[in-house]
Amino acid sequence: MKKIEHIGIAVKDLQASNLLFEKLLGRPHYKIEEVASEGVITSFFQTGESKVELLQSLTDDGPIARFLQKRGEGVHHIAFAVDDIRSEIERLRKEGFEVLGEGPKRGADNKLVAFLHPKSSNGVLVELCQDLKN
Amino acid sequence: MKKIEHIGIAVKDLQASNLLFEKLLGRPHYKIEEVASEGVITSFFQTGESKVELLQSLTDDGPIARFLQKRGEGVHHIAFAVDDIRSEIERLRKEGFEVLGEGPKRGADNKLVAFLHPKSSNGVLVELCQDLKN
Repeated sequence: MKKIEHIGIAVKDLQASNLLFEKLLGRPHYKIEEVASEGVITSFFQTGESKVELLQSLTDDGPIARFLQKRGEGVHHIAFAVDDIRSEIERLRKEGFEVLGEGPKRGADNKLVAFLHPKSSNGVLVELCQDLKN
Repeated sequence: MKKIEHIGIAVKDLQASNLLFEKLLGRPHYKIEEVASEGVITSFFQTGESKVELLQSLTDDGPIARFLQKRGEGVHHIAFAVDDIRSEIERLRKEGFEVLGEGPKRGADNKLVAFLHPKSSNGVLVELCQDLKN
């Protein structure tokens, strides 16, 4: 794990939360991206070498919608940058972590991503992400 | 806000979680610190320019103990580094954020810290921290 790539925060209303986080972080979001495969619309703020990603669900039954129904707005996942996501998945599986899905898939922000089940990582939904430009 | 200073994660058993996060992050914690005023024992892992802070409660009724009872293990707070915590508190109060307590207090890792009520920051418990060495 090289660094915290971003913190993912589930929000109900992306427009309202963009204004809130602009006030909080002292700078505006730098992009908005829809990830149709995940049923979410996201926005990104830079803070140091990491980002804050806000996620609003575009459906009533996707993972962000279910998270909001269960826990309300708040931190949804922590993403760490990795150089080689396939070797990290293999390493973490050997260490006893439960990696969700068969392998990495295309995520927001031009990344290959995979998630660890929170049950195997202290209640934290951990995302691994590898930059596709690398 | 300059960067993500650390992510605070509430855990039940610091010793077990230190081993888990050593496997996850691929490196050991670099220090353990007891914060008697908060009734917690903490450990720190470096990841890029940020840290992961694990927090175990030393009491049955402190904020971490209550968090664990209510939500279980997981992300407890997100801390952002600031240069001047008193001016940031003033700025954020003017912007409508609810800052907990009267002013900054001494926290772990040689920092002055203050917290924003999650109700005013999209369900995220936000910590501001200023390095006392600065």
